[in-house]
Amino acid sequence: MLEKTTRMNYLFDFYQALLTPKQRSYMEMYYLEDYSLGEISEEAEVSRQAVYDNIKRTETMLETYEAKLCLYERFQQRFSLIKELETAIDNKEEKLISDTLRQLKELD
Amino acid sequence: MLEKTTRMNYLFDFYQALLTPKQRSYMEMYYLEDYSLGEISEEAEVSRQAVYDNIKRTETMLETYEAKLCLYERFQQRFSLIKELETAIDNKEEKLISDTLRQLKELD
Repeated sequence: MLEKTTRMNYLFDFYQALLTPKQRSYMEMYYLEDYSLGEISEEAEVSRQAVYDNIKRTETMLETYEAKLCLYERFQQRFSLIKELETAIDNKEEKLISDTLRQLKELD
Repeated sequence: MLEKTTRMNYLFDFYQALLTPKQRSYMEMYYLEDYSLGEISEEAEVSRQAVYDNIKRTETMLETYEAKLCLYERFQQRFSLIKELETAIDNKEEKLISDTLRQLKELD
């Protein structure tokens, strides 16, 4: 998978269930399968401009969902805490283990 | 806080950012502050039926978001895994610790 932007890939992953089938299909082609706008426009038999507008609108929607629900931000926080916890467990640092577990629970 | 239903309280907590201010306000009064429909209707100066319809529609929206994004379901899965992990750490069960950590990471 070529990544045009990592962030947009993650946002798509978290919020794709809230998109329409058409939005999902353009985003998949553009972000996951690395099609160009021209290729998507041929595939979907619409103008390149229509594809571009649809993708731009979808990107804005994904950012709006993220501003409201913060799923990607929380995922990143959880991911770092789990890594810290693994290190703390490996090093048998009991105080750090319980602190990190507490933080993990508070994240939700 | 009196809980009319625990599930609806959680769903409201997870998805309230996606509701309109009016929907949020009725749901807060009804679910968090335990107002009756009659009390909300007096407070908001609308009919009891209008309040009821709004709350029912909002409940359906929250269930639709949950069917798509599964935030409450994932929260419950994460919560049990963290509890299992705590027990495994207390009992120093290394294999269970690493299994549970792996499952926690795979949840996202």
